[in-house]
Amino acid sequence: MNLIDNLQWRYATKKMTGEKISQNALDNILEATRLSASSYGLQPYNIMVVSNPEIKQQLLPAAYGQTQITDSSHLLIFSIWENISDLQVNNYIKDIAETRGISVEALKSFADTILGTVKNLTTEQQQVWASKQAYIALGTALIAAAEQQVDATPMEGFIPAEFDSILGLKEKGLKSVVVLALGRRSEQDSLSNALKVRRAKDSFYSFVD
Amino acid sequence: MNLIDNLQWRYATKKMTGEKISQNALDNILEATRLSASSYGLQPYNIMVVSNPEIKQQLLPAAYGQTQITDSSHLLIFSIWENISDLQVNNYIKDIAETRGISVEALKSFADTILGTVKNLTTEQQQVWASKQAYIALGTALIAAAEQQVDATPMEGFIPAEFDSILGLKEKGLKSVVVLALGRRSEQDSLSNALKVRRAKDSFYSFVD
Repeated sequence: MNLIDNLQWRYATKKMTGEKISQNALDNILEATRLSASSYGLQPYNIMVVSNPEIKQQLLPAAYGQTQITDSSHLLIFSIWENISDLQVNNYIKDIAETRGISVEALKSFADTILGTVKNLTTEQQQVWASKQAYIALGTALIAAAEQQVDATPMEGFIPAEFDSILGLKEKGLKSVVVLALGRRSEQDSLSNALKVRRAKDSFYSFVD
Repeated sequence: MNLIDNLQWRYATKKMTGEKISQNALDNILEATRLSASSYGLQPYNIMVVSNPEIKQQLLPAAYGQTQITDSSHLLIFSIWENISDLQVNNYIKDIAETRGISVEALKSFADTILGTVKNLTTEQQQVWASKQAYIALGTALIAAAEQQVDATPMEGFIPAEFDSILGLKEKGLKSVVVLALGRRSEQDSLSNALKVRRAKDSFYSFVD
């Protein structure tokens, strides 16, 4: 199916069956997410993939009891870097130099541009910026899941500080910002056959020709 | 091509040719963007599609002279709603009721959930939330462009207040948050053949099995 068909097929699944998705589908979704667009290519976020039933059970109350937490196959926890450090930027620059076979010196002006942008932001602004990059990746992951005919529910309704504590994210300098539950839609999900509602074209777009 | 191939093909094009993309490709990209995932399905942002050369010329200095502004085929200006009003939420609820042939009353608890979330946020927090939703749509638009073999450059480097003034967004209660230039890559773009650099798998993911 093409992208538009995949977007029509997907919906934020409210009730999942608990069935596991294939390793192949999971790998494909993770790889697409890793290839997501990101400002400067920096990708200032990590993804934790949770399938352990006990850990999902612990997360359940911190997501207000939403059953996709435990009835999903896997949870992708998108977590931003709490701070964007010079070291992280310099490691990225080294990666580019190695991949492209060029010198770090040749990338100095690009490195300075990234560092200049980052240093111009307060910690809070850095976190907002990193979150927006993570949401590009969330959009990619949703499309990747639909392409694999895997159901998915993006979840903002959870308590980040509790997730961070249960998953040990804080010690790693990470903060959870959004969750994507992957699994299979239940036939009992009343929304599984509901028509998709999106903004009418004439209110959503305007044209300056 | 599949999604991973499309993500490998795309890159943030630094130099475009000025060539126009087909109406069919543009329509497809816009339709995919309209079908993007969004929290509650609300989509608290609009898209302005700019192809007018004089307007693009006016925008150029407000984007620090980046040539994709004028050498693109079309610019998609993603603009969030400055405030999320009860009216906008209620209009969305009416849309759902009409599309699904159910009563507005049947959607009362869903409407209350959205309004509760929105009212719990300061104006600034609403704007951050709306921006994150717009970034999901940006991710979708980037993938749609790649599927159409249209080049695209996501641009954060512009002065929103100047864009808003040139494009008359403020009067409409909108604020520009990110720009996507659509067009054709130039052979003179030194990055057009560069290898893509993305985070190494073992630093990007972790697994809790």
